[in-house]
Amino acid sequence: MNTIGHIFRLTTFGESHGTAIGGIIDGCPSQLKLDFDFIDTELNRRKTAKSLTASQRKEPDRIEWLSGLLDGVTLGTPIAFMVRNEDCKSTDYEALKDLYRPSHADFTYEQKYGLRDWRGGGRAPARTTLPIVVAGAIAKQILNEKDMDVIAEIAYIGDAQQAQKEGDTVGGIVECRILGAPIGLGEPMFNKFSAELAHAMFSLPAVKGFEIGDGFALAKMKGSEANDIFIIKDGQITTLINHSGGIQGGITNGNDIVFRLAFKPIPSIAKPQQTVNRAGESCEIAIEGRHDVCALPRALVLVEALAAMVTLDGMMLANRL
Amino acid sequence: MNTIGHIFRLTTFGESHGTAIGGIIDGCPSQLKLDFDFIDTELNRRKTAKSLTASQRKEPDRIEWLSGLLDGVTLGTPIAFMVRNEDCKSTDYEALKDLYRPSHADFTYEQKYGLRDWRGGGRAPARTTLPIVVAGAIAKQILNEKDMDVIAEIAYIGDAQQAQKEGDTVGGIVECRILGAPIGLGEPMFNKFSAELAHAMFSLPAVKGFEIGDGFALAKMKGSEANDIFIIKDGQITTLINHSGGIQGGITNGNDIVFRLAFKPIPSIAKPQQTVNRAGESCEIAIEGRHDVCALPRALVLVEALAAMVTLDGMMLANRL
Amino acid sequence: MNTIGHIFRLTTFGESHGTAIGGIIDGCPSQLKLDFDFIDTELNRRKTAKSLTASQRKEPDRIEWLSGLLDGVTLGTPIAFMVRNEDCKSTDYEALKDLYRPSHADFTYEQKYGLRDWRGGGRAPARTTLPIVVAGAIAKQILNEKDMDVIAEIAYIGDAQQAQKEGDTVGGIVECRILGAPIGLGEPMFNKFSAELAHAMFSLPAVKGFEIGDGFALAKMKGSEANDIFIIKDGQITTLINHSGGIQGGITNGNDIVFRLAFKPIPSIAKPQQTVNRAGESCEIAIEGRHDVCALPRALVLVEALAAMVTLDGMMLANRL
Amino acid sequence: MNTIGHIFRLTTFGESHGTAIGGIIDGCPSQLKLDFDFIDTELNRRKTAKSLTASQRKEPDRIEWLSGLLDGVTLGTPIAFMVRNEDCKSTDYEALKDLYRPSHADFTYEQKYGLRDWRGGGRAPARTTLPIVVAGAIAKQILNEKDMDVIAEIAYIGDAQQAQKEGDTVGGIVECRILGAPIGLGEPMFNKFSAELAHAMFSLPAVKGFEIGDGFALAKMKGSEANDIFIIKDGQITTLINHSGGIQGGITNGNDIVFRLAFKPIPSIAKPQQTVNRAGESCEIAIEGRHDVCALPRALVLVEALAAMVTLDGMMLANRL
Repeated sequence: MNTIGHIFRLTTFGESHGTAIGGIIDGCPSQLKLDFDFIDTELNRRKTAKSLTASQRKEPDRIEWLSGLLDGVTLGTPIAFMVRNEDCKSTDYEALKDLYRPSHADFTYEQKYGLRDWRGGGRAPARTTLPIVVAGAIAKQILNEKDMDVIAEIAYIGDAQQAQKEGDTVGGIVECRILGAPIGLGEPMFNKFSAELAHAMFSLPAVKGFEIGDGFALAKMKGSEANDIFIIKDGQITTLINHSGGIQGGITNGNDIVFRLAFKPIPSIAKPQQTVNRAGESCEIAIEGRHDVCALPRALVLVEALAAMVTLDGMMLANRL
Repeated sequence: MNTIGHIFRLTTFGESHGTAIGGIIDGCPSQLKLDFDFIDTELNRRKTAKSLTASQRKEPDRIEWLSGLLDGVTLGTPIAFMVRNEDCKSTDYEALKDLYRPSHADFTYEQKYGLRDWRGGGRAPARTTLPIVVAGAIAKQILNEKDMDVIAEIAYIGDAQQAQKEGDTVGGIVECRILGAPIGLGEPMFNKFSAELAHAMFSLPAVKGFEIGDGFALAKMKGSEANDIFIIKDGQITTLINHSGGIQGGITNGNDIVFRLAFKPIPSIAKPQQTVNRAGESCEIAIEGRHDVCALPRALVLVEALAAMVTLDGMMLANRL
Repeated sequence: MNTIGHIFRLTTFGESHGTAIGGIIDGCPSQLKLDFDFIDTELNRRKTAKSLTASQRKEPDRIEWLSGLLDGVTLGTPIAFMVRNEDCKSTDYEALKDLYRPSHADFTYEQKYGLRDWRGGGRAPARTTLPIVVAGAIAKQILNEKDMDVIAEIAYIGDAQQAQKEGDTVGGIVECRILGAPIGLGEPMFNKFSAELAHAMFSLPAVKGFEIGDGFALAKMKGSEANDIFIIKDGQITTLINHSGGIQGGITNGNDIVFRLAFKPIPSIAKPQQTVNRAGESCEIAIEGRHDVCALPRALVLVEALAAMVTLDGMMLANRL
Repeated sequence: MNTIGHIFRLTTFGESHGTAIGGIIDGCPSQLKLDFDFIDTELNRRKTAKSLTASQRKEPDRIEWLSGLLDGVTLGTPIAFMVRNEDCKSTDYEALKDLYRPSHADFTYEQKYGLRDWRGGGRAPARTTLPIVVAGAIAKQILNEKDMDVIAEIAYIGDAQQAQKEGDTVGGIVECRILGAPIGLGEPMFNKFSAELAHAMFSLPAVKGFEIGDGFALAKMKGSEANDIFIIKDGQITTLINHSGGIQGGITNGNDIVFRLAFKPIPSIAKPQQTVNRAGESCEIAIEGRHDVCALPRALVLVEALAAMVTLDGMMLANRL
């Protein structure tokens, strides 16, 4: 269940402090000259974003391409890639080995699998999303060549500077727009474009809410306020406003596709918290080490990556690439 | 793309005003004595809910079971069922044949498929969700026998009585709880339990937002406020509060699973609206006929049904049935 | 697991002596005017083929179309259809209720599911393949419109007339050709065109062998004999002979796709056989009732149907429709 | 389409002469202590088998484990692994760059993808099956711990020594037995155990035929000869003979599962052959370099590996692990 996509598919692997993180992209069109500089740019957006709120881990994130390419051009065969985990201070985590960090996946992973990789949190942490950035950059390159784009921005962020002083963290809201997508993406009944987007976005750690268009605000409107009136503009049928966020009946209508994501605060806080250990005893925990104050600056590129992947896959499914 | 689920799978068919609506349930355990009364009760919840806000369509919704049963007991083979569409006044829709109803799927379906079933809106309307109720009732029966339950309630609804007078409609928010689910449901990375729920819920017409636990409110909290502190209660590890909505790292943690859905107002309003016809001309539309003022009363059983299906399927995937 | 196909997908339902047999076709292109006469012709090929070797069951096999069509034209929504089982003499089977018929699925179904539909053999018999003929006829219509065709013939059949006298049955070999398929169908590594065909064909009851091109004969050749020498013919690259059966490296090469299937004899024989009953006692069985002497005449249309479905689905996957 | 399996799933990558060959195993149970010695033993079976008929490539095939393990124990997360291609003499292939080797995938790959990796044949050669051996060894370890086993043997092989002298190659037939599999594996209608096996086996290069039990020989028997008579043996229901190869109605019946595969001769022969180049001109080709005389000795471990994977996956699907 580590695969996303129907035709353009990414399968990922890697624990945060294991040997390597990587993935296999299956279904990428052949004869595409990969833009490696762009992929690096996207990876750097994930790594360095806003130094103030980001942790200090200095991995080079150098991708090693393992297959699927000849002279930088895609062969149509699976594209495998990996990044080694070079800077692993698992000792930081030894103290946490027998504790369940609040709102982390320690407890649930251990219950589900009977054991867990305590070194850095194993499969759950944000670092394991790195392969999404790679696949997303490739998807975005293909969309860009078709005059489409995906842009995520921070719509709300808590007071990060204050939180950092207090050994605390903050959450926020990301808004993302997919520009230029063709009409007709999304497959009723159970693979509506909105459903595919929601599904993909909940793959990101810390996402706890998702809304399309005016989302929860629509719940408080009347039909006459919420409806997207059709108009003719430049000879094309479009809508006056875009309450629907570009999706009607689960199918894209040619407007910008607009959605928002709620990110909870990062659960790793320096402030002491009460918790429980594996022996079932109450204890106190204060999480040291390199941790972001807020996930949002790094998350933007991930949101865009998944949105690009869903859009490209949707175009392939709808035979509109 | 009209199939949902991995092991317990439902494939649906049917246009609102076609011959019949139905589905095939694949992967249902054998030797289950179906509770037909319960299925009827659930279907009635969808049909008649709160008369004031509901439309007057009086279909009996009598299920015809086509396969998969011997003397009411499941055989392990596909369970097919259907309900005929007996009360179809397609003439109500003749006037709308060449118009695109605002915030309906008329325009997107026609663009995607090159034609559309104008009789009652084809595949998009709420009536096409009927098979979900049937599959959901069976899933719920299985969960109930394991002391689990799924309960949806209206958390917010607009002023329906006033809207009805004005020929308008209202939206609202539904909150749903899954009770008694085992620890360990949900498959990282790309089939987290939250992702599966979100995916399923966006199958419902009019859903525009989804949040788990405290959802969007978490975006405005600090880590120290949002974190779910572990405690020991009755000898079991649990959390003090349930900000996370029962899911951490995408995996259920044994708490109630809590999520909320934003429903936009029903787009069919009697109030005149501006729109465009197939010839690309501006025109006015006033939608007559039987339409609900608010989708929520009927939607509760659908939300529960999908939640039950996702939970049962998740248990099968995690080998915890 | 009652679904076949990736994009053009058929989900089937129905026990031989239950209420109805049918299916849902998902992913059929919209705007296709179905050729109902052709579908009936194909259904009749399954039903009446070679009266001498066929059983006497006189079902009209009248299809009821339940969804997905408007005035006989596909809407792009799921096409559901069914045929009622009208002529069910379950009493014929009462005597067999507690016996395991040799080489039938009685024993394995009962072990797997804990019960079985003893009326006519439930899900296993040939009658349950009827939906394949319907979906296959639609697939074939689409292929025919692109100057492609699928033709199955009997390559070998046992002495049916003699076997009938003896209360026995015979098997045989079917050879099938797919004509006009484009180069490039089949997806390495695990969805080679040969693998997809083999997978589909083993869905048919009684199939016990499958070979592509010269198949098992190739195992006894040398490389210099078996290799398909490339030549230029009419300005096109092709091969001198077609030992490979039109597939190299799992991908179609533009030649006719040729494969053969081994059908075991129908296991229902009038001749007395030794067997075991549910109580674990040895006993004798003589299967009365309407049964074919040989499956092949009826099977031809099924082989063609599955081949057409696999080819159409392969074209959609390879984006070559 | 480089993924096989439903729950126990392998996704592979790698060209024969690219950077590395490897895969991701998803769905492997957690808490399994991998038997690395056994995996190496299996890899050596693929590499060195019968020196006389095997080519001289001396890759160490040293596996690098990238994820999914902690101290050699599976975490329940994806297990990624790779083997670097160290001994790549692509220069051997420069001469073949513009030629289509007879009965190779050169032509079909180039037609399908618009380009191909001419270095060593890219994705098609036998070397790309290495990840199957790794996943198969893990599957076999799990089966062995449950007293099951999978054993493949050569049932027929051409005269390899003579062929080698002539610069030619030979094919053959492999017979494989799955021992100890539980009753009830295989999912009707479209995932019968025979269909899953056939599908998997056609992933192997050079496989052109597949038969279950008595296979093609059944086509020439009468029902009274071919039927598997039920008997009681040691208090258990079983069959007198095993014509069916352990599968009835697509479901395993507790007997040994027996199947046979036809391998065509390896198409790379030293003997000169006629062919065509990319410019569409006739020319002659004599394939030098390291090539086996017969694929069978190396193929045995691959057949066993795929059979073990299908069996394990089938047990997971049927909830019988």
